[in-house]
Amino acid sequence: MTKQERSERTRKALIHSAADLFDRHGYVQAGLSGISAGAGVSPGALHFHFKNKSALADAVEWAACQCLRRAARRVHRKEGGALQTLTDISHVFAVLIRENVVIRAGVRLNGDTDRTSAVELREEWQHYVQRLLTRAVGEGNLRSEFPPDCFSSMVVAASVGLEVLGRTNEMWLSRSTVTMFWQLMLPRMAAEHVLPSVDPAGRDDAVHFALMAPPHGMSSPPP
Amino acid sequence: MTKQERSERTRKALIHSAADLFDRHGYVQAGLSGISAGAGVSPGALHFHFKNKSALADAVEWAACQCLRRAARRVHRKEGGALQTLTDISHVFAVLIRENVVIRAGVRLNGDTDRTSAVELREEWQHYVQRLLTRAVGEGNLRSEFPPDCFSSMVVAASVGLEVLGRTNEMWLSRSTVTMFWQLMLPRMAAEHVLPSVDPAGRDDAVHFALMAPPHGMSSPPP
Repeated sequence: MTKQERSERTRKALIHSAADLFDRHGYVQAGLSGISAGAGVSPGALHFHFKNKSALADAVEWAACQCLRRAARRVHRKEGGALQTLTDISHVFAVLIRENVVIRAGVRLNGDTDRTSAVELREEWQHYVQRLLTRAVGEGNLRSEFPPDCFSSMVVAASVGLEVLGRTNEMWLSRSTVTMFWQLMLPRMAAEHVLPSVDPAGRDDAVHFALMAPPHGMSSPPP
Repeated sequence: MTKQERSERTRKALIHSAADLFDRHGYVQAGLSGISAGAGVSPGALHFHFKNKSALADAVEWAACQCLRRAARRVHRKEGGALQTLTDISHVFAVLIRENVVIRAGVRLNGDTDRTSAVELREEWQHYVQRLLTRAVGEGNLRSEFPPDCFSSMVVAASVGLEVLGRTNEMWLSRSTVTMFWQLMLPRMAAEHVLPSVDPAGRDDAVHFALMAPPHGMSSPPP
């Protein structure tokens, strides 16, 4: 292993350990000594990579953001209408938040209004949902009773609610809960001719394909 | 004014000032000196009433909880079906969170999973929604396509999302956003015969009646 590879591995171990402590004890309670110990490195190695706890939190947020973007791009590689793509992505995000501690901690840190962040995941998610629903309009697949922004607001509100509630009970992020949300919402959103072809449970192949690429080994602690 | 009245007034001023600082700067950043200064009392007076910042936060949460319960009880005094009552209460809560700093800060503190609280507002809200929807079933006013718990989960998820998003942009808690939510949801929830009689914008008289009682002068700083 080259020096650069070792350095990169240490950096990832620190990000993972920080995410784990932020997730279990909250940002304020998490201590730098616990983070370096969790990564199996010295406090000096931590300070070589990150100048303070805030820099570590930034790195966790950024890693989460990159993973979510990458997963969304993979869903897009499976062809399908915009409504199905949106449904699939919501399932992929729910799995990632439930099962990947870096993503879970990063999303939570990003939602903390007391912190300033380089990325705004909720805004990015809102714009993303808006773009997909604009595409659904173009496809002739969205009901015209309401402006598309009504639907995107409700999708964003419900998904933020599920993420926040999922912090104390992961049932809120289960496949069945997300499916139920779409079972309730799709008949309000989808044009009648397309409704039977949109699967509220997400397409297995698209969801699995998006989850297949381990996000740079973030999902489990580096060896 | 008796000694007891003066003491009660100081206590309320401290709760209001703490809520204001928690709301603007977050719990961690808010300092005790700023809280006593904001209440116009000495640090000694603060310590006479509250042993530390956590005790102040508990008092803010408790005050918020009492105000929300009182407002909900007032909505119930206006007769109406369970679905209309639920719609009205959601509008009342949105106004209170938007306009009353003690309620806004209390709800936010209560949602902070790093704190332990004597009350669990989100759980209480969920049970409350469940009870109202069970009543709607009894009235024959709920669609039977889904179990009532599906609806209550979605109402809870969306309302938690709106509260959290409303921290950075109060548009999420506006009457038009809450109305839009019910415009989308009610046709999925309400039996066809009752749908035309449920107002998604809430009944003006019920909402105003619930908001009329100033929650122990918490809505504006005590004189």
